[in-house]
This record gives sequence, structure tokens and C-alpha cells, in this order.
Amino acid sequence: MNAKYSLVNEDLVLSEKASILVTDLAVQRGYGIFDFFKTLHGKPVFLEDHLDRFYNSVSVLRLPFKTGRAELRALLQKLMDQNQIPDSGVRITLTGGYSPDGFSVASPNMIVTQQPLVVNSELSASGIRLITHDHQRQLPQVKSLDYIMAIWLQQQIAEKNAQDVLYCPAGIVTECPRANFFIVTKDDRILTPSENILKGVIRKQLLKMKDAFEIEETGFRLEDIYNAKEAFITSTTKNVLPVVQVNDKPVGQGVPGKVSLQLRLALEQAIHEHLEKPSVQYA
Amino acid sequence: MNAKYSLVNEDLVLSEKASILVTDLAVQRGYGIFDFFKTLHGKPVFLEDHLDRFYNSVSVLRLPFKTGRAELRALLQKLMDQNQIPDSGVRITLTGGYSPDGFSVASPNMIVTQQPLVVNSELSASGIRLITHDHQRQLPQVKSLDYIMAIWLQQQIAEKNAQDVLYCPAGIVTECPRANFFIVTKDDRILTPSENILKGVIRKQLLKMKDAFEIEETGFRLEDIYNAKEAFITSTTKNVLPVVQVNDKPVGQGVPGKVSLQLRLALEQAIHEHLEKPSVQYA
Repeated sequence: MNAKYSLVNEDLVLSEKASILVTDLAVQRGYGIFDFFKTLHGKPVFLEDHLDRFYNSVSVLRLPFKTGRAELRALLQKLMDQNQIPDSGVRITLTGGYSPDGFSVASPNMIVTQQPLVVNSELSASGIRLITHDHQRQLPQVKSLDYIMAIWLQQQIAEKNAQDVLYCPAGIVTECPRANFFIVTKDDRILTPSENILKGVIRKQLLKMKDAFEIEETGFRLEDIYNAKEAFITSTTKNVLPVVQVNDKPVGQGVPGKVSLQLRLALEQAIHEHLEKPSVQYA
Repeated sequence: MNAKYSLVNEDLVLSEKASILVTDLAVQRGYGIFDFFKTLHGKPVFLEDHLDRFYNSVSVLRLPFKTGRAELRALLQKLMDQNQIPDSGVRITLTGGYSPDGFSVASPNMIVTQQPLVVNSELSASGIRLITHDHQRQLPQVKSLDYIMAIWLQQQIAEKNAQDVLYCPAGIVTECPRANFFIVTKDDRILTPSENILKGVIRKQLLKMKDAFEIEETGFRLEDIYNAKEAFITSTTKNVLPVVQVNDKPVGQGVPGKVSLQLRLALEQAIHEHLEKPSVQYA
């Protein structure tokens, strides 16, 4: 559930009343983008990386968004100041706007919502099971509103007693709908797909750890998962989350692996160091 | 622009105030479906075909929509009675609803809007130019809200001085974002793709004309268009609209063809006969 206040464009409104007209291109045609960052102890985590990606999505979808970065940061701060939720998730959605003909992009509407952060520590300990599905997200470099396939697959995921789906178009491993995917090979190389994916902010943090880990962006196939020692996914809410099974086959020993745990601890350390930097704003 | 009144769920509201909360799954995740029919002289055209497809989309996306067909028909009638626009387009949108977690499907919101019908008779006379794009719509049998690719391609369509795009995944011809596609071969066979498309209501009317025309559903490729005598698209607003160019190559003689014109007249006759039936309601 959303916090008491949300932003609709530049206005702080009660979340229970935050609305947009039905002529918005998000409602009419699913056209829009978003980004999502977390705050810990009242401080946004990797905010600049999220804003980089947000403005890239704006640019690729050609949304005529006039709000500059400093102004956007100030609006986010205003919302966080109002809601006072130290550990939270903040979602910035930008829609196609009130289109006069229901098809042309108009002046976008911005919606910012905040929720208390939900972390499922049980899953972190046990690891998760994935199914795979032959699907390629359209415009994969954009964090668009398009989650039709992901939501439609929820029933199949539940039927297979899994927790999420890994998209593997023509057998090539890409990503989960809301997370990046990694394997650890038998010779301790850490691999993550390089193409046709949304490049996650946590994924970027792991790729910075090349001094401590042998980690690389490269293409691989579903069979490579079955031959891997470990697998895990990364996301803003999940950090590093072990994957113990893919399509009825255990990954490695079928339990969370040692390298995944090392990376999780290294990521937690990186987040800790990030939050200590004086440039990171307090909410 | 929408008519004075719209429906939000069962309520008639002023269109300028018709809104939904931002927690709706259409706004959050682009999850929802719609259908669109026209009225002529105050009577809905092929309404039952549109409702068949609407309820099929509801079923495939597993939207827990409780409103039965008779009740929905009565709500549509209520809106049409109020707006009094004899020649119009009516859009029924059904969203994923106010999802408590932003991902699970909830009780859908229904939005019905009505606009005066816009027919571009200049394009009907001159025919249109298409570009092609390697893209397959996800869940193609569903009239979902997903038009991200179609809207994103508008710039490219304009740059190429075309009017619309034809999706040809791996060179196989499927459909335009809002219309079905047909060719007329040199030996006067009329072909339209059979698979991985949204089956249009006007397309269905043409397929009923097998006594008068040699018309069939079958797979074909982009090269077959370049070898065709004629091509055209069909939709609720466009009826039968000739295609005179695809990707810088003229189709046939590069002018609207004879068979296309015959089919357009036959369709107009079928619509006329449909509206004369006593079972078709007056608005």
C-alpha cells in the first residue's frame, strides 16, 4: 500500500485520491515508463543511477518531459520529507499524457508513489525457483510499463510452484521481468547476459566488483544454467537472491551457493559505503 | 475528443472528469484490454462480434469481470442515449484494477468513451503507404493495451512518408497495429494471415464472402506482397483501405486496385444489411 502522500506532476496529493484522466496514453495504450529506487535510513540508494536510467527511458520513448534533474530531485525530496518512511521504495512513473487523438504522445503526467520497503528474508535464505518462457521484451533497454506477459504468466508460475520467470527467447537467457540474472560456472566465472535486457542498477554495482570477482557480461543459453554451479538474480528490492531451481532442474546442489552469498555481502558493503558518502542526500 | 459523457464502471460521468486512481494495473503495468465498435445512424455495427472478442480478451487475461453481456449492452445503450452521436466510435476499456501489491490482478475498472466517427475519405481514395517492422505482438489474439511499439514507430513512419506499419516478424506478414492485412495475388486469390494476429471484425465479414470472392486465411511472406496485384487493410474505422506502397516498393500498379474496391462496396452492402436487421438496437 502506498504511503499517505503521492505526487501527481508537481502536486502533493493524498494517495487515496491520486488519479489521472482516462484519456492518458498509459490507460489507452500502455505507453509510459517508470523507475524505482529504495531508501534506507531515509537516504535514497544509487539515486543517480536510477535517474540516469529514467532519463534514458524518457529519451527512447520520446516523452516531452520538461522537468530537469535538479527539479526532479527536489520533488522527490519533498515527497520523502512529507511521508517520513526511512526504509521505502519510491516509484516514478511517466505516462504518454492526455493524448487528443488517443495515439499521439502528449505532455507526460508524472506520478510518484512511495511504499514501505518489503524484504522477503525467508526467500533470501532458501533461494527461489524459476520457470522459463520463450519471450523477448520489446524495447528491452527501456523500463516501460509493459508487464502484460509477466502478469499473465503468474498463474503458470504458481502452478509450477515457482516464484518467478526467466525469459529465454529461442533458448537464449536474458532476464526476469523485474530482475537481472547471473550464473556462476563450475570454474567460478560469474556471467550475466549483455544484450536485449534492462540493465539493472544492482547489476551495475556487481559489474564494478571485477577486482574481487571474475565477472563478465556475455551471452549464454539455458543449457549453461543446467551446467552451472550457482545462479542468482539481482534487483533493487531483492539485492542478490539465489536461484536454486530452473524448470524442475536443481541449479548446482539445489541450495544457495557460496559465491552468491559472497556477492550479497559485497553488495551490502557497497550499499553501506554509498550511504556514507556526504553527497547522498538525507530525506 | 471524447463526447460529453463517459462511463467509469457503472457511472455516467462528465468525460472531462473521467479518471482512475494511479494504483490501477493499467497505469502501473499496462495490464488491460479494450474493444472498439462504431455506430452508424445511432445503431452499433457488428456489436455482438465485438462483444465476443471483448469477452475473449477478458478471459485470456483472466480479468475477474463480473458484468454479463446483457448488462454490458444496457450500459453501452445508456451512454449512447446520453451522448446522442449517431455516427460514433465507442471504446470499452477494462483494466487490471486497483492492485494492492502493484502486480496482482484485482477487480477490473471499466471505462467506456465515445467519440464522433472520423473517416479519412482522402486516404480511401489515394490508398496508403506502409513500412514494415520485424515485430510480433505478445498474446496476439488479445486486444490488449500494449501499443508501445506502434506508438514508438510513429516517428519512423512519418520519416518514411508512410501512414502505418505492417508487422513482419522474421519476414512473415501478420498485421498492422490497428488493422488486418490482405493481398490480392496475380491470379485473383485474396489472402490474409491466419496466425499470430488479432482477428478483426471487418476481416471476419470479408471471410464470409467466400461465395463471391476467392478468399482464404493462409500464411505468406513479405516477398508475396511485392509480387501481389493489390493489397489493402481492414478495420472498424477504415473498412477496406487500399495499400499502394510497402517499403518504397509500389504494390501492383501503385494505385488502389479493382478487387479492393469491389470488396469495399461488398462490405458497405454487408454493413447496410446488418443495420436493417430488426435485432440491431437503436441508440
